[in-house]
Amino acid sequence: MNDKRHSGSANHSPDIRRRVSNRIIGFSDGVFAIAITLLVLTINVPSNLTSSEDVSGFLWQALPQLVVYAAAFMVIGTFWLRHHRMLMLCRAVDGRVLVLNLVFLAFVSLLPFPTDLLGNVQTPTTVIAFCAVAGAATLCEIGLWRHLHRHRELLLPDLSQERVASLTMWRLGALGVYIIPLLVSLFFPKIAVLLMLALLPLYEMVFHRRFLRHIDLLYLLHDD
Amino acid sequence: MNDKRHSGSANHSPDIRRRVSNRIIGFSDGVFAIAITLLVLTINVPSNLTSSEDVSGFLWQALPQLVVYAAAFMVIGTFWLRHHRMLMLCRAVDGRVLVLNLVFLAFVSLLPFPTDLLGNVQTPTTVIAFCAVAGAATLCEIGLWRHLHRHRELLLPDLSQERVASLTMWRLGALGVYIIPLLVSLFFPKIAVLLMLALLPLYEMVFHRRFLRHIDLLYLLHDD
Amino acid sequence: MNDKRHSGSANHSPDIRRRVSNRIIGFSDGVFAIAITLLVLTINVPSNLTSSEDVSGFLWQALPQLVVYAAAFMVIGTFWLRHHRMLMLCRAVDGRVLVLNLVFLAFVSLLPFPTDLLGNVQTPTTVIAFCAVAGAATLCEIGLWRHLHRHRELLLPDLSQERVASLTMWRLGALGVYIIPLLVSLFFPKIAVLLMLALLPLYEMVFHRRFLRHIDLLYLLHDD
Amino acid sequence: MNDKRHSGSANHSPDIRRRVSNRIIGFSDGVFAIAITLLVLTINVPSNLTSSEDVSGFLWQALPQLVVYAAAFMVIGTFWLRHHRMLMLCRAVDGRVLVLNLVFLAFVSLLPFPTDLLGNVQTPTTVIAFCAVAGAATLCEIGLWRHLHRHRELLLPDLSQERVASLTMWRLGALGVYIIPLLVSLFFPKIAVLLMLALLPLYEMVFHRRFLRHIDLLYLLHDD
Repeated sequence: MNDKRHSGSANHSPDIRRRVSNRIIGFSDGVFAIAITLLVLTINVPSNLTSSEDVSGFLWQALPQLVVYAAAFMVIGTFWLRHHRMLMLCRAVDGRVLVLNLVFLAFVSLLPFPTDLLGNVQTPTTVIAFCAVAGAATLCEIGLWRHLHRHRELLLPDLSQERVASLTMWRLGALGVYIIPLLVSLFFPKIAVLLMLALLPLYEMVFHRRFLRHIDLLYLLHDD
Repeated sequence: MNDKRHSGSANHSPDIRRRVSNRIIGFSDGVFAIAITLLVLTINVPSNLTSSEDVSGFLWQALPQLVVYAAAFMVIGTFWLRHHRMLMLCRAVDGRVLVLNLVFLAFVSLLPFPTDLLGNVQTPTTVIAFCAVAGAATLCEIGLWRHLHRHRELLLPDLSQERVASLTMWRLGALGVYIIPLLVSLFFPKIAVLLMLALLPLYEMVFHRRFLRHIDLLYLLHDD
Repeated sequence: MNDKRHSGSANHSPDIRRRVSNRIIGFSDGVFAIAITLLVLTINVPSNLTSSEDVSGFLWQALPQLVVYAAAFMVIGTFWLRHHRMLMLCRAVDGRVLVLNLVFLAFVSLLPFPTDLLGNVQTPTTVIAFCAVAGAATLCEIGLWRHLHRHRELLLPDLSQERVASLTMWRLGALGVYIIPLLVSLFFPKIAVLLMLALLPLYEMVFHRRFLRHIDLLYLLHDD
Repeated sequence: MNDKRHSGSANHSPDIRRRVSNRIIGFSDGVFAIAITLLVLTINVPSNLTSSEDVSGFLWQALPQLVVYAAAFMVIGTFWLRHHRMLMLCRAVDGRVLVLNLVFLAFVSLLPFPTDLLGNVQTPTTVIAFCAVAGAATLCEIGLWRHLHRHRELLLPDLSQERVASLTMWRLGALGVYIIPLLVSLFFPKIAVLLMLALLPLYEMVFHRRFLRHIDLLYLLHDD
């Protein structure tokens, strides 16, 4: 890897230093991986189980927690997939991306907390708490994407304007995935959890079929 | 690392973008590392220990938890080794691999939960819970491998058909490692745990001797 | 990556081996990512919540814990940003940097402990505990930076002396961010937490505007 | 990175495949980073603290836990430093290194468990439990190093025989660091903890001064 320093282009007169660093990727992957793995700690295991019946009874009771685990894993997994896809389109990041990314990660790594609440009791309040944190993370992601496509020197040069627009749409639509269960939860909180479990993969699938179908991405693991 | 974009080959007409990215490896390694390290939290330490006798008594009681820790560490460790070996044969991954890999990781990172149960009480139900999660992860791994060898452009070009077949066999056989303790646990749950501890390394060793002996892999840490 | 061995320059006569390794970055990023994600575990979720009112009541009570979570996330995030920036200016690290970095990380990864205390009860003692650990980490960071700029062969050769001085100032000033809330906490502990939440981003912003404005950093994700 | 396949040298007749992979490093760094950060969870924070006096009283009581945290952080940190140094001398790893490394990591990531015990109560039993796990990890490390220097094609070609011998000595001596506190703990368990805290850095420092002084290592972060 070479350090390349250019003495600055027209609109960035003073002194722009360009260096190769992908620590933002390593650190973000670490936070995603830990937040997603800490979800398992939200399933409380009582220490006073003794017989096979106790365990069966507990597993039956823990069923909502397992469903919530699946939903939360999917939510964080989708954030990772979208983050992965966003940074694949980036050529470089600046200091502001680092800061916005930290705020985004703060909401992602807060998710195990409302997940824990939601696993214990499914009321409107807990669904709202979960959707609020997931929605705030989505808002940060939209802010991050907005900063990137407003500073086109950060994105790959061959990215078409329609592509940028459809990716903006994709992120705005993802916000809806958290608003609908939030509204449903006011009347049927338990159904809202199942809705979230169904809505997220459905949305991603339909959107990919409609708007991103013609773009098939292959990620090479090594460069030959 | 160079970004290489080809305008598409015969069978992928529209627009295939090829980019170098190994975030799937970094993220998966993170999840594996955390899931395997969270296992230690399944050993409950009481806070009311005061004398040396208390500690000895507790350590004696914690023995099954330590055995279960060893078994679960081996299970996740083996998943990592097989995942490592699978991705070493890959040239590239597509979007579906990313999604299948996330589902696989969801089961791997769920493993500390049945491990916790199994450490507390060894009944048929807990052995079944553990084997079911480990078996589901193995099924996902088989699905991942099936997707890869059906899309041969994702695998390295010099991989022989027999090699692919023997690796498929290896993964199907690994499913048996979780079915046998499951059946034994219906009658002797405590023996099923020990069986799992013995069966997994035995299977890996025998299989390597018989089918993979002639292939000796060296992983270079740097490319000279 | 090539291993390069030079037979030694003038002031390091015997045998200096130069090898490429960025494990210090991978390991540090891991510790930062885990410490920052463990913060969410400092928010205690009671398991006896049943109704929607219980949850609302609990969320209201948990508000100080959420504020403390935000403050601690910002503190560790800022440590990461500064660590990132420090190592971007490094050309190489020696054995002593590895050891100093470990001591620095020991304080960073201890931070979830005073965060937990501070979330539970806001008294002068807990604010002091938090500020003491964060201040100790800052001191280690200053020590690390001092070692680096005293061994200029470790830093990039084109780094100007004024730049080094302003970065030293930046780190010394960061110590003040923990001393001021510590003093305020003796009289108004709750305000001290809010002060920390406000002071840290304010300091970073003002300092960047004044001293680092003319240097705009772009981190390339790949080298083209 | 290039995939290089050689059709096999004299003593490895059938089919040796050489591929570039440093997942062993990424995964190990992950496990080290998590094990070292989980140590903070061994400090139990009671949730019934209300006044400033409660907190002071608790902090005073938690002092042994903080000392044990420091000792355990140093132990895992030293394992990381030695692991880092070992793999820096490696040119490649084979399948057996992956397996031995997993067994080594199993003991490293078990360390938070005896650390938790040792923080709660300082009796001979808990010191023995801690030293036994740390000693077992050291034995695995010795086994790993033995496998490497018996298969010299895995090590860098320019490594002198004396260097290999002194590194073997270094690892055998490190075993003593855990045997001495173990013996002392039979009579003065509290002193044994402090001894461990002092002995480990002392040993590393003295050994480096005497045997490794003439070798000064510089780790380049990028290859220019």
